[in-house]
Amino acid sequence: MRVVVPFDATDPKTRLDPVLDATERRAFSERMLRDVVSAVDAAGGRPEVITTAPLGSESEFEFESESESESESEFDFERDREADRPVEVRVDDRPLSTVVNDTIDAVSEDEELAVVVADLALATPTALSRLFETEGEVVVAPGRGAGTNALVVRTPEFRVDYHGTSFLDHLGIARSLGIEPTVVDSFRLATDVDEPADLVEVLVHGEGHAHEWLDARFELVVDDAEGRVSIERV
Amino acid sequence: MRVVVPFDATDPKTRLDPVLDATERRAFSERMLRDVVSAVDAAGGRPEVITTAPLGSESEFEFESESESESESEFDFERDREADRPVEVRVDDRPLSTVVNDTIDAVSEDEELAVVVADLALATPTALSRLFETEGEVVVAPGRGAGTNALVVRTPEFRVDYHGTSFLDHLGIARSLGIEPTVVDSFRLATDVDEPADLVEVLVHGEGHAHEWLDARFELVVDDAEGRVSIERV
Repeated sequence: MRVVVPFDATDPKTRLDPVLDATERRAFSERMLRDVVSAVDAAGGRPEVITTAPLGSESEFEFESESESESESEFDFERDREADRPVEVRVDDRPLSTVVNDTIDAVSEDEELAVVVADLALATPTALSRLFETEGEVVVAPGRGAGTNALVVRTPEFRVDYHGTSFLDHLGIARSLGIEPTVVDSFRLATDVDEPADLVEVLVHGEGHAHEWLDARFELVVDDAEGRVSIERV
Repeated sequence: MRVVVPFDATDPKTRLDPVLDATERRAFSERMLRDVVSAVDAAGGRPEVITTAPLGSESEFEFESESESESESEFDFERDREADRPVEVRVDDRPLSTVVNDTIDAVSEDEELAVVVADLALATPTALSRLFETEGEVVVAPGRGAGTNALVVRTPEFRVDYHGTSFLDHLGIARSLGIEPTVVDSFRLATDVDEPADLVEVLVHGEGHAHEWLDARFELVVDDAEGRVSIERV
């Protein structure tokens, strides 16, 4: 399965601004991307990163794992993988819906396409396998706030529209084509990391590079009066 | 399977105070409870409501579906059910962890016990069946914010502790007993309704009485600049 992973490299994760500065947001979001790519790969998908601007360095991510110093914004997909094939990275700064709809048009008849957003820090191979293996012409994993965090498209007629209540819109678009969409019920796939409260989820449930990065800088704290959990700098 | 559904009837859902007044919070939370009880029942569980104070009326919920006028805080579990047995309702104002641990002690050897919180407005029979059918001595469905929204206990040694990071604590308690806990990955079970943002989820994904009640009063609105989704009074 081709799995498009769109990444906003321009000014990622601005809503994390109250707790992470711009350099940190960049470093953290690249680690989430790396985790998602690894999980897609381990789930048997073929990840294709589509980024709004070049990643990490100018070098198109061909640097090797033994490379010199690892700067905050530098990473290497290949370190995490069996590396029988390189991860494809394309720069495309058009709106996400345009890029994905063009990709749907370009998918050959015997191929399946998935779109998995890059900020699913909780995504695991198990969660993604469940998505990929769910039958249906249109399979949707909702995100919090009526979003669409992951999608499998097995019909060339389908169109995406990522603005606003995209989860409801995608159900509606499928039904308008006579397709009954299938919804995948996954907390891991529903948790895109946008706001400081989402970082609690990364600390509690994350397992990859993004978790490791965050865990070195933040810890969970329990508000004793209400028992609510939040994060604080270590 | 015995399924304890604990309900805070005293001053429910105070964190919804910015959008719902006290009467509304009570009415809404009772509808969520009713939905959870119906879903537990449809999933083959035997619901037992444990409430901190009497529900709806003084009458222990024995009123029938043909009953007179339905006040805001009055409802009838039996309307939603095959009604081959009444829903057990117990008033117990001790701390939740104490009540559940006492129940674990009281479960007979050939019985299984689940605990499902009452504010899972997105819970469906399918989601709960997946929980009930997951094998393991301790099965946990996490809630957002490191909470425990649903739990299956198949060993009398297990203890609960619902304060703070209860999800992590429950994993730790199981492991300290030599039990590897199983985690159920469900967005529907992870979404307990505590804050105004959670009401978006009820409007988007809810299917029961709580959804119907909320949908009569609120609608989804999309912030066009950012594409974020929130709710507004109709």
